[in-house]
Amino acid sequence: MDIINKTIEISTKGETDIVDITGEVQKLFDQAALNKGLCTVFVPGATGGVSTIEFEPGVVRDIKDALEKVAPREAFYSHNTKWGDGNGVAHVRAALMKPSLSIPFSGGALSLGTWQQIVFMDFDTRPRQRSIVVQFIGV
Amino acid sequence: MDIINKTIEISTKGETDIVDITGEVQKLFDQAALNKGLCTVFVPGATGGVSTIEFEPGVVRDIKDALEKVAPREAFYSHNTKWGDGNGVAHVRAALMKPSLSIPFSGGALSLGTWQQIVFMDFDTRPRQRSIVVQFIGV
Amino acid sequence: MDIINKTIEISTKGETDIVDITGEVQKLFDQAALNKGLCTVFVPGATGGVSTIEFEPGVVRDIKDALEKVAPREAFYSHNTKWGDGNGVAHVRAALMKPSLSIPFSGGALSLGTWQQIVFMDFDTRPRQRSIVVQFIGV
Repeated sequence: MDIINKTIEISTKGETDIVDITGEVQKLFDQAALNKGLCTVFVPGATGGVSTIEFEPGVVRDIKDALEKVAPREAFYSHNTKWGDGNGVAHVRAALMKPSLSIPFSGGALSLGTWQQIVFMDFDTRPRQRSIVVQFIGV
Repeated sequence: MDIINKTIEISTKGETDIVDITGEVQKLFDQAALNKGLCTVFVPGATGGVSTIEFEPGVVRDIKDALEKVAPREAFYSHNTKWGDGNGVAHVRAALMKPSLSIPFSGGALSLGTWQQIVFMDFDTRPRQRSIVVQFIGV
Repeated sequence: MDIINKTIEISTKGETDIVDITGEVQKLFDQAALNKGLCTVFVPGATGGVSTIEFEPGVVRDIKDALEKVAPREAFYSHNTKWGDGNGVAHVRAALMKPSLSIPFSGGALSLGTWQQIVFMDFDTRPRQRSIVVQFIGV
């Protein structure tokens, strides 16, 4: 049984920038050369999240619209009254989306659907450099 | 340490069909005959999700009502303008609910609460045949 | 490879009480004395959730406000018409937030960001005694 921890480094634009990281995860998975086990994707930080979507511009747009209903950019945020970074909206969206995703793999392939991509969501209100943790446990 | 990957095959009605899969997961867990470790439930596909609820008709109804607030069935979805399947609502709900769930087990039992069932949520707008991935890592 | 299952016992106030459990998880992690692997935090029960946030009173307030939009405390819940506990709101919030969180670790440290704390969210409408499951798989 092997445990392999890697990171993906990406630049984001912020403001709920939804980035397809499937290719980077797949590349690390290929390098790990494991047959079956569990892949965990984790965002270290309180203003980002991870999920899966069919990555096309319409879905990306629709997700942003839905999050705008739950945590609007222009709403009042208590966080902003105490801290100068003004990114209360990012903290709320990240808390609700959560930072982890678990993807089993077997037969040397991640168990993703054909139209299912892994996305990092950067909710912060400014461009960021991000390190996303990708871990493989398996044989 | 064993890694066991299985699938559950189910038929769903779509339109946020919330299906109790606890019995099927428990059956696979019993067959795996493991004592302690981690169970991962994963939905391969971008229009379904997995969570836990007290499975009774009232809660099921209430969850549908809450999702209707965040991603209403009759809203405008950009996804629908480009793709003919008209299931933008399903993509948004699935992205927010996410496709994975992790359940530790020990003493030969899943760590679920007494009134806590594992549910697959099919957000697609039509009936579907679904394969849900269930993985056990443990001893 | 070791698998270590522990529980954290906490008292909560209910009504979306958001409790920082990072210290307790870290203490169990230190006792486990593992170098690399996966930490899973799991809520056994259908009225609680787990996520990560920058734990400060403003963010806590803002998350409660966002959940109030999706599942208001004073809304109608079908669950409440059948069951006497009147906590339909808690069931919906828990279903949406989900009960599990996965945190990789390596180099003897959890992969949390500097301003990222692990929180248990008790959505029930009354004070509760809670056991949170914390599992470490690793070497």
